[in-house]
Amino acid sequence: MNRQDHGPAAVQTLRWREGRLEMIDQRVLPARFEYLPFTSAAEVAEGIRSMVVRGAPAIGCAAAYGVALESVQLRGATREAFAVGLQRGFDVLAASRPTAVNLFWALARMRAVWDANQHRAVGDIVDCLLAQAHEISADDVRINRAMGAYGAALLADGARVLTHCNAGALATAGHGTALGVIRSAVQAGKRISVIADETRPFLQGARLTAWEMVQENIPVTLITDNMAGHLMSRGEVDAIVVGTDRVAANGDVANKIGTYMVAVLAQRHNIPFYVACPLSTIDLAIPDGAAIPIEERAAEEVTGFRDCQWAAKGVQVRNPAFDVTPAELVTALITERGVLRQPNRTTIAGLFAT
Amino acid sequence: MNRQDHGPAAVQTLRWREGRLEMIDQRVLPARFEYLPFTSAAEVAEGIRSMVVRGAPAIGCAAAYGVALESVQLRGATREAFAVGLQRGFDVLAASRPTAVNLFWALARMRAVWDANQHRAVGDIVDCLLAQAHEISADDVRINRAMGAYGAALLADGARVLTHCNAGALATAGHGTALGVIRSAVQAGKRISVIADETRPFLQGARLTAWEMVQENIPVTLITDNMAGHLMSRGEVDAIVVGTDRVAANGDVANKIGTYMVAVLAQRHNIPFYVACPLSTIDLAIPDGAAIPIEERAAEEVTGFRDCQWAAKGVQVRNPAFDVTPAELVTALITERGVLRQPNRTTIAGLFAT
Repeated sequence: MNRQDHGPAAVQTLRWREGRLEMIDQRVLPARFEYLPFTSAAEVAEGIRSMVVRGAPAIGCAAAYGVALESVQLRGATREAFAVGLQRGFDVLAASRPTAVNLFWALARMRAVWDANQHRAVGDIVDCLLAQAHEISADDVRINRAMGAYGAALLADGARVLTHCNAGALATAGHGTALGVIRSAVQAGKRISVIADETRPFLQGARLTAWEMVQENIPVTLITDNMAGHLMSRGEVDAIVVGTDRVAANGDVANKIGTYMVAVLAQRHNIPFYVACPLSTIDLAIPDGAAIPIEERAAEEVTGFRDCQWAAKGVQVRNPAFDVTPAELVTALITERGVLRQPNRTTIAGLFAT
Repeated sequence: MNRQDHGPAAVQTLRWREGRLEMIDQRVLPARFEYLPFTSAAEVAEGIRSMVVRGAPAIGCAAAYGVALESVQLRGATREAFAVGLQRGFDVLAASRPTAVNLFWALARMRAVWDANQHRAVGDIVDCLLAQAHEISADDVRINRAMGAYGAALLADGARVLTHCNAGALATAGHGTALGVIRSAVQAGKRISVIADETRPFLQGARLTAWEMVQENIPVTLITDNMAGHLMSRGEVDAIVVGTDRVAANGDVANKIGTYMVAVLAQRHNIPFYVACPLSTIDLAIPDGAAIPIEERAAEEVTGFRDCQWAAKGVQVRNPAFDVTPAELVTALITERGVLRQPNRTTIAGLFAT
């Protein structure tokens, strides 16, 4: 079977059906596989906030569709009402989650289309916005396949690759970033096995990464987050590949909470630490990691998982959803324009100059 | 209120009632607080294996009572039947869990009492064994208070202390090792706040450490294990205190899985990493950490928590219950004979020579 064309990799995190957006509800995977419908910017924003959809590139795609949906709702409006309503849509989407820069990147692309077509009829603007949303998703898959090809070359045949969180098809419009690298390596004929950190508190590793890999018969071993160091110390990890929610201009990497600990342990054990990173995730406006906003989420995520609550009553909770891995710990960024080893301010700026 | 004499610190992990052992069922805390009865070595061994009781010192106390219970059962037996039956009791207890050396230490103490009283009537041997089991538990509390006093001096007023797993009253006969240090510091008038790693997969931090601290109004903040590095990087952790299941002759420390990652991060951030360690946990027969047996437990602990199973079906699982922190990462061992900074083979041997 050609996995690339017909396999479960074709699972569509987001799809456009009958004039509305449908997204896989990632809160209930893998127990249930179901799509939820979205018809407005506010609904999409709530879907992002509540993590129906998550993963920086997928959030960007969803936000673009959120703007498009809002414009569709306003198709019959006056030019003034359209402008007010669409601006409200942008605002509610921008306020959904703070860390993943792809959200703001996608909104900026949608705004640019709006700006460029201001003079046209409202209906034409709507068509342009929807076309742009489709294009952002299609681009995302192409970009992920390009990153995958570059990244696959970094993985040796037989490599045991540890990943944190889910940077897979479910975190993107398809193929994935970190898991895209693994998929591309497998498609190139390499025998790759995956070690998946479960990734508390939302358990993206146990639920989503494990599910994606099992679907495609890529060998995958689940561990709790605190086991990664032990496996590294025993020589059971050959490489680490993760995604990212925002890379600062100096190469500091914000990603799912726990990534930093993995990177520090990787350095200690001389294991390469790769970050699969489309250019849309690099934020040149942020000088370094200290300036990246880190979302703090609800206590209930930490005191248990969904309805299963186990912590002692009365305990205080911290729940930062992301952490920052300094550039010095990053062996290379894997981008759609190639592999950037030992990323720094100069080489990152160079990526955008080409 | 004098916490030391009347407070919840008086919770008894193990207690002797009407000729049988009762232990708090730590699998169901904090939702339910209940004692389970034990009347034989095999029952106690199963209680250790299934983690009704856990924590190296508490396992040692339980094993001693297991031998005593078996001897009580055999009180009416011939000398030969007593010897065969009691040996079987030792064997089943020794096979319960492999990593915590206190188990084997306690069994050795019980065997020494048996050996020393071989010539006496069976009933007298039974009395001696039960007295020894009581003494091991009473000693444990005294030792923990001594460690607590030494360790408390290491913590500054206002210190934010991170701990992993539960090395509290519930892991011992009382007071605790790592949490004993914190309790003693609080009793000495210091304002200490605790950061508790939840400690997947068994969640001893979220369920047991948080519960103990809330009971005593010691401020406690719960985090997932993968957040510890982020908090350290933000300057929110002043010291780390953990317990241990076995310390090798060179100072390498086996403790609950995840301890190693905490220690590596602590070194990076120049945060002192203390191990509260009664002499009964030091195994001079083990040259270094590589020789410490690491228990691998059932997959179901990692794919979920109890009845709440969330991982993708078909995933493989690793579940090492402990890891090894090399001595070079240990700022000091806190023992009942004082604080041993930068422990090594020579200074550890010296502890036993005094």
